[in-house]
Amino acid sequence: MIVVMKQGSTPQQVEHVVQLVREMGLKENVIVGEERTVVAVIGNDRFKDRTAMESVAGVEKVVPILAPYKMASREIKKERSVVQMGSDPLATVGGKKIGIIAGPCSVENKTQLLEIAHAVKEHGAVGLRGGAFKPRTNPYSFQGMGEKGLELLALARQETGLAVVTEVMAVDQVELVVKYADVLQVGARNMQNFNLLNAVGDQRKPVLLKRGLSATLEEFLLAAEYIMSRGNHQVMLCERGIRTYEEYVRNTLALAAVPALQRASHLPVVVDPSQGTGKNYLVDSMCRASVAAGADGLIIEVHNDPEHALTDGAQSITPEQFASMMKAIKRIAAAVDREV
Amino acid sequence: MIVVMKQGSTPQQVEHVVQLVREMGLKENVIVGEERTVVAVIGNDRFKDRTAMESVAGVEKVVPILAPYKMASREIKKERSVVQMGSDPLATVGGKKIGIIAGPCSVENKTQLLEIAHAVKEHGAVGLRGGAFKPRTNPYSFQGMGEKGLELLALARQETGLAVVTEVMAVDQVELVVKYADVLQVGARNMQNFNLLNAVGDQRKPVLLKRGLSATLEEFLLAAEYIMSRGNHQVMLCERGIRTYEEYVRNTLALAAVPALQRASHLPVVVDPSQGTGKNYLVDSMCRASVAAGADGLIIEVHNDPEHALTDGAQSITPEQFASMMKAIKRIAAAVDREV
Amino acid sequence: MIVVMKQGSTPQQVEHVVQLVREMGLKENVIVGEERTVVAVIGNDRFKDRTAMESVAGVEKVVPILAPYKMASREIKKERSVVQMGSDPLATVGGKKIGIIAGPCSVENKTQLLEIAHAVKEHGAVGLRGGAFKPRTNPYSFQGMGEKGLELLALARQETGLAVVTEVMAVDQVELVVKYADVLQVGARNMQNFNLLNAVGDQRKPVLLKRGLSATLEEFLLAAEYIMSRGNHQVMLCERGIRTYEEYVRNTLALAAVPALQRASHLPVVVDPSQGTGKNYLVDSMCRASVAAGADGLIIEVHNDPEHALTDGAQSITPEQFASMMKAIKRIAAAVDREV
Amino acid sequence: MIVVMKQGSTPQQVEHVVQLVREMGLKENVIVGEERTVVAVIGNDRFKDRTAMESVAGVEKVVPILAPYKMASREIKKERSVVQMGSDPLATVGGKKIGIIAGPCSVENKTQLLEIAHAVKEHGAVGLRGGAFKPRTNPYSFQGMGEKGLELLALARQETGLAVVTEVMAVDQVELVVKYADVLQVGARNMQNFNLLNAVGDQRKPVLLKRGLSATLEEFLLAAEYIMSRGNHQVMLCERGIRTYEEYVRNTLALAAVPALQRASHLPVVVDPSQGTGKNYLVDSMCRASVAAGADGLIIEVHNDPEHALTDGAQSITPEQFASMMKAIKRIAAAVDREV
Repeated sequence: MIVVMKQGSTPQQVEHVVQLVREMGLKENVIVGEERTVVAVIGNDRFKDRTAMESVAGVEKVVPILAPYKMASREIKKERSVVQMGSDPLATVGGKKIGIIAGPCSVENKTQLLEIAHAVKEHGAVGLRGGAFKPRTNPYSFQGMGEKGLELLALARQETGLAVVTEVMAVDQVELVVKYADVLQVGARNMQNFNLLNAVGDQRKPVLLKRGLSATLEEFLLAAEYIMSRGNHQVMLCERGIRTYEEYVRNTLALAAVPALQRASHLPVVVDPSQGTGKNYLVDSMCRASVAAGADGLIIEVHNDPEHALTDGAQSITPEQFASMMKAIKRIAAAVDREV
Repeated sequence: MIVVMKQGSTPQQVEHVVQLVREMGLKENVIVGEERTVVAVIGNDRFKDRTAMESVAGVEKVVPILAPYKMASREIKKERSVVQMGSDPLATVGGKKIGIIAGPCSVENKTQLLEIAHAVKEHGAVGLRGGAFKPRTNPYSFQGMGEKGLELLALARQETGLAVVTEVMAVDQVELVVKYADVLQVGARNMQNFNLLNAVGDQRKPVLLKRGLSATLEEFLLAAEYIMSRGNHQVMLCERGIRTYEEYVRNTLALAAVPALQRASHLPVVVDPSQGTGKNYLVDSMCRASVAAGADGLIIEVHNDPEHALTDGAQSITPEQFASMMKAIKRIAAAVDREV
Repeated sequence: MIVVMKQGSTPQQVEHVVQLVREMGLKENVIVGEERTVVAVIGNDRFKDRTAMESVAGVEKVVPILAPYKMASREIKKERSVVQMGSDPLATVGGKKIGIIAGPCSVENKTQLLEIAHAVKEHGAVGLRGGAFKPRTNPYSFQGMGEKGLELLALARQETGLAVVTEVMAVDQVELVVKYADVLQVGARNMQNFNLLNAVGDQRKPVLLKRGLSATLEEFLLAAEYIMSRGNHQVMLCERGIRTYEEYVRNTLALAAVPALQRASHLPVVVDPSQGTGKNYLVDSMCRASVAAGADGLIIEVHNDPEHALTDGAQSITPEQFASMMKAIKRIAAAVDREV
Repeated sequence: MIVVMKQGSTPQQVEHVVQLVREMGLKENVIVGEERTVVAVIGNDRFKDRTAMESVAGVEKVVPILAPYKMASREIKKERSVVQMGSDPLATVGGKKIGIIAGPCSVENKTQLLEIAHAVKEHGAVGLRGGAFKPRTNPYSFQGMGEKGLELLALARQETGLAVVTEVMAVDQVELVVKYADVLQVGARNMQNFNLLNAVGDQRKPVLLKRGLSATLEEFLLAAEYIMSRGNHQVMLCERGIRTYEEYVRNTLALAAVPALQRASHLPVVVDPSQGTGKNYLVDSMCRASVAAGADGLIIEVHNDPEHALTDGAQSITPEQFASMMKAIKRIAAAVDREV
């Protein structure tokens, strides 16, 4: 870290900062500028609470230098990670092949799920999404089918071979969800539910970690670090739009996060254009853009009857729209030397 | 809800919308304007998923009319709610008296906690804050003392009479925390941890619910509704700053939320100027402003040695600064016909 | 507009609203719901100030129904507009061909400009960007070469045939800039400089209108409407990133704005991935994504010596990087049935 | 500035950075850490474009150390500035007395303006606001009365003694507005209209500079610096809310900006709770909070007939509400040792 002293800070104040640095077991380098003095701290201060230093008299601000995450960092692992979902060797995210995960927002019933699962499988998906436990803003809204929904997902996997990607919302659900799922999804609202991160970190199944509604990339990678630090290295980062002042979309899909995350981390990056826009008429275009931007995977909401969808009807595309989108992104994938 | 049709939508499309409205058990009123047709839906559509309607052909957008929350709403209960914290009859939030909760960010050890507790008690606090379970962005940071911290909080209560306000981070911690705490705090990062909301809703102890980092007021009130719908009506809403592009503060304290929440809800509103700014030198001013704006309570981080605080040193004020701030807000409280 | 009355509003209050509606020369339709009454206003209220209605006793809120812009709207003109830049028939934006505008942030000297102009021309650009008048956050920073810079741009056009795209910052500069430029650029900070919008609207040269730092799409289209309402219909909309809490980028490039603007308006949409990210290492990826998303044009900062660039070095790519990017987007353009 | 090198940067890259620093006429101090090397730059680099340095190979990021503004800075002038508006010695902003500016959003006609002016004067205002040139989002909306409006403002000053505060939107309006106004207002949408800033900087009348919709405090102070660097030191900074994701307000009033600006600058700080919330029912509370937070002045929209206001009816309070608010803030001002 770099400790920037206030203009007019006294030598005693600088001395006191130096002392605090040494207390931490670190070394200092004091640089007296024309207008300000700065104290450069030498050594691994990654896990020190720098806000305490900001409270010291004479200190203007403290600038961190080291990235606070390690295992998620590209500095630790240069080659890109590939995550295998379920048992189908083609169901990977992070390699040349772009992994497509599709399905309904919520599992609603057997007919609905199987119909959609068969349709997305036919057009090239390798993973099946579908929520059995639903995080709903409103306590009176449909909260998901629970275990019955998980059973239907397992049935759909059996019939189609698709890997099951489904959300786990709480520590005490992990054991149950792990029995049915191939990939544990941690939702945006739980990105900083640290107990849950630890719990999925203790599992040995891949985790699809969604970016929080207003998470910075650093916070996002630190959430991944929580999971990895417990021994589970199979983490996929999912950009799903952030909250901004924009009102024509549900969320602002920040596609520059794709190359930025790939630069900072070796973990594969998936994009969710459904949540990322909230509008079915923007999904196709954003799927195209995601592939061109270098995404390693897509997760897309598909519903056979959006008008009657119990959740997220407005952002679900139909199986026909999914088929057409898949054709389009196959061409784009080829143009960027990838495959779908 | 109001369904706004696209310009050029067909009579068949309007008819189809009408049909869907009736399917929901609601009535419609079709208004043919000069440029657009709108379908006004009559009846309680509060818990219908309106996004499905947005997916219907010919529909431009759907505008909700009814607030989606009920029990938290001022329309249900006109008089303001008062929350009693612990057994001291003066430790209330929501009445004429403004309830002051103060203490360290984290419980660090016995000496630290007791010293701070005595100091804040002496200067007028009625509640003691202090985290035993800490939600930390970084997995390698200090995670709190756990149960040992709760024991110290109980000891501090015994010595000072202060009500204990402490965070519960997970469903499986609720039982433990309830044994020690007078008020269960749900942190900003857990505002939409719905399982946790349900779990504290099943308790009969007051809940201090912090606003999520980028939560709208409606989402905030719906989180309160989760708790209330389980039978626990003792909810305090805590404005703690929102995430914006501003970089000179940790969060942007949105003080207009105080009167806006009081207008929409009968629940008391507490302000956290420590989290709400992240800078100790802004805390005093924002405490003053909060009281003038009509806040029912304040929650403030106080540390006897901020330079060595394990967490949040930069935003902690010292006991001396706390004493001086309390004097200032007593005068302001009197000027707005309140008391501290 | 729809006027939503408060719960418990009186019949007199509703009657008063009706009266105000009729005063405006409009008609009303009063809908008495189970919980609330709403007054649907019939007629063209597009240019009425609806905030006055929000101040009326008993009114909860007012919801606009009609889009407030006309000439920029797709409802008025279904087919997409094509803007011709300068005299080269290939220099168009809005047709099948994607128009590429490239060049330095600022015109610095003759050698720099000509070297860059020749390079971008060679690799497929049809427009040359370069600022002679520079809007700088800091009054002490380089403010541009002024007319001397415009002369160099004209020279570069003469040598390369590229259309000149350059910024005009003030009403009293318009006359001068029009003499040299093929396209008048209005910068993000001037998107709501209404006097300037009127002034370029009075010209008959194409305008590249940049989206304001925190402009909504509606405000963006209304800025275009200012220009068009003065008779200048040759407007290109330029998405250049918005301000959000994200800190790893200078701006958050909101690519969903491309299809959303194309849906709402017939005007062509250009993307600026240089301003839109602020980082040279993100430009290539965002150029690819923009083309895949359906952008009609790109505007890109290219510098032959970024280390010594007087402005925006961090987001400028080199001619070599430009050449490589152009190759990449040609393939993607083909994959979405466009051309570069 | 501090240049942070990438992990694994080569000694040649560091050497190259050092060379570039020396080219700028500055000195360097190279600090080799355990994981990273940083180059601390010594000397006044305030006006160097640091983004060029960010483009250099091996550089991770560049951290500025010096504040980029000078004349607006508290480091240059410790004592707080007081701005005199017009000729009434009581009409000051920045001293013990809090200056209250009130009046309609727009000048609409003589009766309206005089009635409001007399009312606000009677209840303690020292300045009269009122727009003659109106920056309107929509080209078809009322654009203000122009010079006729300025004449009415001058008439109101003559009748009441209030100082006239009115907006100037364009360089070519400055001469005209200066003839009538006591204070030149620069609106939020023009905060970075640098030509306008220069033009008002060339005048010798006080300027009320509104914060841009998404301006950082640094950008805000640099806009003030533009004006001051031309010789006009009478600048008042006006916090008027920023754009955030919040939807229940028009803008989010960021009151912590008051103490933060006063800490960074000697210039007085005025708050606009009308624009800052957009809702008349939030204005009273935010006026109170502003005074408690330490604001040096308030600017408030007052209308005698909000239902028929041509602009901003929803956020205008009535003369009666103004009178009641003034009583309230007098008590709060006394409680913070200020006066109204």
